[in-house]
Amino acid sequence: MWVIMEKFEITILGCGSALPTMKHQASSQVINVREKLFMIDCGEGTQVQLRRSRLRFNRLNHIFISHLHGDHCFGLIGLISTFGLIERTAELHIYSHPDLVPLLESQIHYFCKGLTFHVLFHPFSPEKRETIYDDRSVSVETIPLSHRIPTCGFMFREKKTPNHIKRDMIDFYHIPTYLINRIKNGEDFVTEDGKTIPNNLLTTPSAQPRSYAYCSDTAYLPQITEQIKDVDLLFHEATFAESEAIRAKQTFHSTATQAAQIAVAANVRQLIIGHFSARYDDESILLEEAQRIFPNTLLAKENLRISL
Amino acid sequence: MWVIMEKFEITILGCGSALPTMKHQASSQVINVREKLFMIDCGEGTQVQLRRSRLRFNRLNHIFISHLHGDHCFGLIGLISTFGLIERTAELHIYSHPDLVPLLESQIHYFCKGLTFHVLFHPFSPEKRETIYDDRSVSVETIPLSHRIPTCGFMFREKKTPNHIKRDMIDFYHIPTYLINRIKNGEDFVTEDGKTIPNNLLTTPSAQPRSYAYCSDTAYLPQITEQIKDVDLLFHEATFAESEAIRAKQTFHSTATQAAQIAVAANVRQLIIGHFSARYDDESILLEEAQRIFPNTLLAKENLRISL
Repeated sequence: MWVIMEKFEITILGCGSALPTMKHQASSQVINVREKLFMIDCGEGTQVQLRRSRLRFNRLNHIFISHLHGDHCFGLIGLISTFGLIERTAELHIYSHPDLVPLLESQIHYFCKGLTFHVLFHPFSPEKRETIYDDRSVSVETIPLSHRIPTCGFMFREKKTPNHIKRDMIDFYHIPTYLINRIKNGEDFVTEDGKTIPNNLLTTPSAQPRSYAYCSDTAYLPQITEQIKDVDLLFHEATFAESEAIRAKQTFHSTATQAAQIAVAANVRQLIIGHFSARYDDESILLEEAQRIFPNTLLAKENLRISL
Repeated sequence: MWVIMEKFEITILGCGSALPTMKHQASSQVINVREKLFMIDCGEGTQVQLRRSRLRFNRLNHIFISHLHGDHCFGLIGLISTFGLIERTAELHIYSHPDLVPLLESQIHYFCKGLTFHVLFHPFSPEKRETIYDDRSVSVETIPLSHRIPTCGFMFREKKTPNHIKRDMIDFYHIPTYLINRIKNGEDFVTEDGKTIPNNLLTTPSAQPRSYAYCSDTAYLPQITEQIKDVDLLFHEATFAESEAIRAKQTFHSTATQAAQIAVAANVRQLIIGHFSARYDDESILLEEAQRIFPNTLLAKENLRISL
């Protein structure tokens, strides 16, 4: 039995925190689900990181903003402006807290005259859980978080694809074309002489749908575990080490320990931590701290690509 | 005879044009005149380049914006926001076309709540020549340019410093302290018995005042040569090679040839060209073109520092 895997890939464009450093860019990632690109957050410098990633600009049509701190959205105007200069035509959809709309619109109006494409805003309230995007491949749901201003994470859930037909069996049983889609979707086939051919002889199962949860920025918030239960990959912020737990609490951020505790409680397959405070020259202290609790933890870094 | 040179240094933070690339950052430079830092333009990513430069943030109090295209000003909000996070207290003065004021103010108001320092705007009209900054070390004058929107360059003129006294001669003639400043400024000394000691025996001359002209973005504009006559260093944009002269004219930019022609006509000591179009992987074509006309030409590049 074999399974065709379509792409579900996360590319980290930036994983620093509020103070940019020479090592880390401001927050941004791109999620590639079956060749559609979705951006989460867009800090200053994202457009250059996007270019560096060699992802195709014209496949990026949706940008989700977790919250309106500058390190998560100051790169939007530059990205939009550049899309204008390269004469993009596809619509660009931006999902964010409603306050972004007038701020960004006034900049677009002034700096991007004669824009060759439409920017469409989809304001939502980060404080309530809702599905803000849905197509035949994937849905995106908000994950309300606890930060100094309204903030949410995003849950990407791939949809199950139809099974793959076994071409040779289709030929062998002379199955007519009009039945193929029904067989892909699980029906058995009944031959002219009434014999039932079970679906599992005619198809191979499609891959299990995959899921990705992005949770940044947030204080330690155990109630999210229910919503992100069993995800394949969890990105959780780990701005601080546990030695800075008080500062983490004060600033509504998490420690590496807390990120790992969330991963354990939610039974995720893999954890990636990021949004590192500029105070850590070497984040291995954060990695080791998280791995003591949840061994399958990775450190985010710029240009890292992870396939699910 | 020896001369004490105080700093007059230009650091290139970014010298790309509108489309950022992996090689070049958006426009920004810092001019260090005797340990006061002045920034010209502030494209996206400038704050990280400033950090990379290791220039001291708290000595930067004045930012001059040549024109309101995004690649010259999108980095302002991130820089201001970061100055807030590191709890700057010194005032920050921004000199620009008046249109920037409401746009940037509304962003500061939203994103930089509780800012620990004042941002003071000094709007000016880039279309007329005027002195927009003046202190005891340096003056900054606008250089009206020809671009698609109101644009100006900036002329930095250092002021002459007093001569340096020769300590041993001061001691030898028992010159009283209250006369020292007058002698530094050129007076002779008359001894008690009426003998005149000429100033050149008592002092060494201070360095010749230096000057720097920044001209970007602009179409070929020969009338600026009168204003920038004899400057020590001219930064002139050279977005294109001469083979793209038509495109340069259409977009109100200059070719490397034209930049060099301006340098010749203005009799400048040294030329540095920048604001390179993203189409040039290798800018040596631009350098060679300019050097054929004006041999003392340099290519700008990120992190380059030039002392005058």
